[in-house]
Amino acid sequence: MPKIPVAILGATGSVGQKFIERLIHHPWFEITALAASDRSAGKRYRDAVNWFQQTPLPPSIGEMVIHPCKPHLEGKIVFSGLDSRVAGEIETAFAQAGYLVISNSRNHRLDADVPLLLPEVNPDHLAVLDQQQTPGKIVTNSNCSTMGLVMALKPLHDQFGVKAVHVVTLQALSGAGYPGVASLDILDNVIPYIGGEEDKIETEPLKMLGHLQNGSIQPAHIQISAACNRVAVVDGHLECVSIQLKTAATKAQLIEAWTTFRGLPQELELPSAPRQPLHYFHEDKYPQPKLHRQIEDGMAVSIGRLRECPVLDWKFVVLSHNTVRGAAGCAILNAELIIKTRRDSVGLSIPG
Amino acid sequence: MPKIPVAILGATGSVGQKFIERLIHHPWFEITALAASDRSAGKRYRDAVNWFQQTPLPPSIGEMVIHPCKPHLEGKIVFSGLDSRVAGEIETAFAQAGYLVISNSRNHRLDADVPLLLPEVNPDHLAVLDQQQTPGKIVTNSNCSTMGLVMALKPLHDQFGVKAVHVVTLQALSGAGYPGVASLDILDNVIPYIGGEEDKIETEPLKMLGHLQNGSIQPAHIQISAACNRVAVVDGHLECVSIQLKTAATKAQLIEAWTTFRGLPQELELPSAPRQPLHYFHEDKYPQPKLHRQIEDGMAVSIGRLRECPVLDWKFVVLSHNTVRGAAGCAILNAELIIKTRRDSVGLSIPG
Amino acid sequence: MPKIPVAILGATGSVGQKFIERLIHHPWFEITALAASDRSAGKRYRDAVNWFQQTPLPPSIGEMVIHPCKPHLEGKIVFSGLDSRVAGEIETAFAQAGYLVISNSRNHRLDADVPLLLPEVNPDHLAVLDQQQTPGKIVTNSNCSTMGLVMALKPLHDQFGVKAVHVVTLQALSGAGYPGVASLDILDNVIPYIGGEEDKIETEPLKMLGHLQNGSIQPAHIQISAACNRVAVVDGHLECVSIQLKTAATKAQLIEAWTTFRGLPQELELPSAPRQPLHYFHEDKYPQPKLHRQIEDGMAVSIGRLRECPVLDWKFVVLSHNTVRGAAGCAILNAELIIKTRRDSVGLSIPG
Amino acid sequence: MPKIPVAILGATGSVGQKFIERLIHHPWFEITALAASDRSAGKRYRDAVNWFQQTPLPPSIGEMVIHPCKPHLEGKIVFSGLDSRVAGEIETAFAQAGYLVISNSRNHRLDADVPLLLPEVNPDHLAVLDQQQTPGKIVTNSNCSTMGLVMALKPLHDQFGVKAVHVVTLQALSGAGYPGVASLDILDNVIPYIGGEEDKIETEPLKMLGHLQNGSIQPAHIQISAACNRVAVVDGHLECVSIQLKTAATKAQLIEAWTTFRGLPQELELPSAPRQPLHYFHEDKYPQPKLHRQIEDGMAVSIGRLRECPVLDWKFVVLSHNTVRGAAGCAILNAELIIKTRRDSVGLSIPG
Repeated sequence: MPKIPVAILGATGSVGQKFIERLIHHPWFEITALAASDRSAGKRYRDAVNWFQQTPLPPSIGEMVIHPCKPHLEGKIVFSGLDSRVAGEIETAFAQAGYLVISNSRNHRLDADVPLLLPEVNPDHLAVLDQQQTPGKIVTNSNCSTMGLVMALKPLHDQFGVKAVHVVTLQALSGAGYPGVASLDILDNVIPYIGGEEDKIETEPLKMLGHLQNGSIQPAHIQISAACNRVAVVDGHLECVSIQLKTAATKAQLIEAWTTFRGLPQELELPSAPRQPLHYFHEDKYPQPKLHRQIEDGMAVSIGRLRECPVLDWKFVVLSHNTVRGAAGCAILNAELIIKTRRDSVGLSIPG
Repeated sequence: MPKIPVAILGATGSVGQKFIERLIHHPWFEITALAASDRSAGKRYRDAVNWFQQTPLPPSIGEMVIHPCKPHLEGKIVFSGLDSRVAGEIETAFAQAGYLVISNSRNHRLDADVPLLLPEVNPDHLAVLDQQQTPGKIVTNSNCSTMGLVMALKPLHDQFGVKAVHVVTLQALSGAGYPGVASLDILDNVIPYIGGEEDKIETEPLKMLGHLQNGSIQPAHIQISAACNRVAVVDGHLECVSIQLKTAATKAQLIEAWTTFRGLPQELELPSAPRQPLHYFHEDKYPQPKLHRQIEDGMAVSIGRLRECPVLDWKFVVLSHNTVRGAAGCAILNAELIIKTRRDSVGLSIPG
Repeated sequence: MPKIPVAILGATGSVGQKFIERLIHHPWFEITALAASDRSAGKRYRDAVNWFQQTPLPPSIGEMVIHPCKPHLEGKIVFSGLDSRVAGEIETAFAQAGYLVISNSRNHRLDADVPLLLPEVNPDHLAVLDQQQTPGKIVTNSNCSTMGLVMALKPLHDQFGVKAVHVVTLQALSGAGYPGVASLDILDNVIPYIGGEEDKIETEPLKMLGHLQNGSIQPAHIQISAACNRVAVVDGHLECVSIQLKTAATKAQLIEAWTTFRGLPQELELPSAPRQPLHYFHEDKYPQPKLHRQIEDGMAVSIGRLRECPVLDWKFVVLSHNTVRGAAGCAILNAELIIKTRRDSVGLSIPG
Repeated sequence: MPKIPVAILGATGSVGQKFIERLIHHPWFEITALAASDRSAGKRYRDAVNWFQQTPLPPSIGEMVIHPCKPHLEGKIVFSGLDSRVAGEIETAFAQAGYLVISNSRNHRLDADVPLLLPEVNPDHLAVLDQQQTPGKIVTNSNCSTMGLVMALKPLHDQFGVKAVHVVTLQALSGAGYPGVASLDILDNVIPYIGGEEDKIETEPLKMLGHLQNGSIQPAHIQISAACNRVAVVDGHLECVSIQLKTAATKAQLIEAWTTFRGLPQELELPSAPRQPLHYFHEDKYPQPKLHRQIEDGMAVSIGRLRECPVLDWKFVVLSHNTVRGAAGCAILNAELIIKTRRDSVGLSIPG
């Protein structure tokens, strides 16, 4: 059976490049079209892109001609790494034209009929897809800094209940896209502000950790406070988290909850699923962005430094690869989950 | 009247270099002796030091011969930037020999008869000096990351009462001394752990914000939780702080409490005192280490981003220069305060 | 006598900010107008600028309203930090309107009647000003990476003759303006290319080291080869130079040529002149950007590591502050020299 | 046939870690022993090492107990990443005990009977092994910054003859080992000096590009001048090279010489051999350390920016991965070449 043809929207951008890097050897998908802004459309990809990945640009991709972001692309799935200033309408147009839209943008994340999907956390939320009235469907993943936090909270929330979360992030440069942060602004510096980011972290987890009731998602009741910083790291968001639990737990119980956590992607052995979604490190100085962002090909989340918090109950450190697990890799896992579990509803099946 | 002769212990180290940089043109003090470990003793300072300040090594200092850290140094005051592995005994020896010891080390900070002095915050704590039985006296300043926090808390604690503090730090490389952090450990990275640091931030403020009762310091009752990170910044500790207050306050009241705050150093116009100890920035992206660590010659503390905290009451960002306000500069201000206010008890007076 | 009123063109840019920083306390000049692109014109300076200097924005400057770059500005001198895409015509318009234009842009540098002025090197080149037919005059300074090189070559060329120069630069981020280099492009990286830079270094020194003959500048005969790299340094261009001399010289002679070198700015004691233009370091590891770019307030050039070159004759390292000595500071020194030596021809005199 | 047992000397160091990373999945070799200094001997590897690679420490390696560097290790080949202060005697002892010593240290590089081996460049130099009188043999690879240069020079020297080379390096932090360069020394800085490095680059290529005559290596006659800088890059040495040729060549000829270059490792299809040893980039801004150090798993060398040099003939940029192609990877390729071509003389044969 042939591979499923997929297109990439926003292909020249930071997330678009990661889509290419992770789809080029994918067992189920084949890149059949690239689309980007009108400025790039019509050019060969290699001439339009400033490729800054650490693996070389695949030559076959480099020769492809970029299309405009109109719903006439070869492919059944579109992966969208579009800027949120334009993503909303374009993604809707593709859904109306019958494509399965796997979006990394924030525009539709909080729509009631759009799953804000993290496959290990809320695969049941795919049920709301049935409420979408378009021939195609839209599925979104969370903000990059939300993802690592929610992955770490999920098993604790299931077993002990999370009442309150205080999180301070140290976020990587790649999270700001390209050109993103000016070097003069960040070398020998920290920027203690990322526009809109704190709001996303304080709201998205409520939907993601919410439960389905009568076909709609009821948000979780958790108090979340976020403070976001940009630091001079290429990839990998680190988060200092303090939490308050509903039910008392021991340190050993919390660590076990993390290390034994598995979700549907692991059960289904999806191609992009990490073997173990959460890795706990016992060394005081771990996890670190440079050393651990690549664990399980960037798809696992690393946790460490669990200790009592004198103000809330517990504190710990979470690390995740923001452009892989927190963006392109998560979106691809979303697509894999949909094809595996809802092939009928989206009219696609697994090749091979 | 001649300047007061002072000696520097640990003169080749990171804090020792800052002492030299800030004392070389001081109106009251004159550097008359440098002391360091046995490895350096006997050498010319220029041959023993790896000078890494951004102002040139003063030639007259470069020619001085380094002494061992024995209490036979020319000078009445010794500024100690010694490593805490050796500082305890050496500083005691100097106090017994009659010197006024202005220490930046942690060894004596929590001794009941030693002031943990921050001149704008607790000048009255100098009263416990009378309990020291030695001919000389020891005065300490706090850990570098404690200092900025306590400066920011002081006016809020006085006016509204602080019940709980949650602080996550992003600390500069110079706080680890020299050679300190290896470049391979921090370039493109964050280290979410600094040995012993969280404990200092959770305990030192209690003494500093405590009150004198019957001649002894009663610690403040505040819950403090700290998480410390090392980031790739040369100088300047940034702290993301959330607080819970005893009495409700408005945003305007908190900002006014900070901007109008003045202490005894300002009243006395001490040479190293900043004109305004706390600067509040209204721009979202400020304060930043590279831009604001030098404010008021590194002696002021910068605050910004005050906003409501969904978990505690308020959150904000604090920035201070860790080797100036948080170490050498604070120690020198401590010495100035003592000379100005307790000249009799230490047998020293202001020159000129 | 009142200060001379001066305006700044391109005031919001990287060089414009440095002009403000260095003119705000200047003994002869007073900033009376700021001008920038149409996008900024009409705004208060504090609202239009992304101030990224390490000294605070002077409040009085922050309140000034930005003008368009039209020759109706209050002031007799205009300091131009304009982008070269627009500088050429604007500077000509100001010269036609009678202003003395002190330009940092490349547009007019190679015009036969425009001095490419480095006050210690070729003050006699001011003679060509008389050939300019406009009521005002234009004077330029060199490219930032040219400047340090020419300063180091000047005494050697005078005493021994320079036949060939091979230079490899490691240039700071601030040389690319703001936002300039993207952080994702330079963190953990080097970019071995700076557009147009090598050509400037290979041509500008020939004019600057040329001699006046019958009122026109005859270029020097030197073979120059340049290779330019961008590195992750905030300020300070470092250059690895190899030279071939016409006359043999000893190491001691070369060092003496540098350390004893003085020019007209030193003789005239101009306000921005370094006391000693060239500093030689005998330590193998010096000079370094972070440690030495600030020497003499950023106006001196540092040299080190003189040793024999197996291919040419000698090799050494040169360091200079690219936005100070290599741009704004040099332009201001140019203005000082003109006022001091040619006050009649430009109709200006020294205040005070 | 079982894999060949190999031991690693200096296993906890920077190069030792790279040996482990690249040998753990090697088709021919199996790590059977780790040895390090007496400080580490007797400890479990995971407790003794500060593992700072970006791939996780293999758990089976972490559990191995470290041996002292005595010639009683299980294994037939020892890969030595020892510090040069101790490598000389230890490596000799292992050769005397019958091991094949594949050394990355400088101690024996210039010994007349020791090949300074770069498999694509001088495989015939293995002939001098017969002159070694010990039961085992010692083979060395070059200094990390020498390697990239010699790879780039080889096809040009063969076809056109190289008379003179001028090279300025921008070297990565990992070249200094661990802890190596202090972060305070290199953040926002360049260090224009690396002790001993320039001498290695000026001498080692002469032996490597030399020819065998009557069984001994006659050095090449090339003038080489090197200037070495340390920059804030994790991995990847970049070199700005100018050359003078004996025979005139066109730009196209030089590029073709590089891109068509293949050596014995390619012909023999050795496991660690890059498919194409030299990659030429036509984009002005390439190669760059972050983007291209990983090409062909770090074993290829990247070249770009070929242009005429006004002082010598041609100039260009060379990039290589210093701890892979320039150290551990090259050493492993050396071992592969020996086993494939001289199995009898060292008593080893290829498994499988």
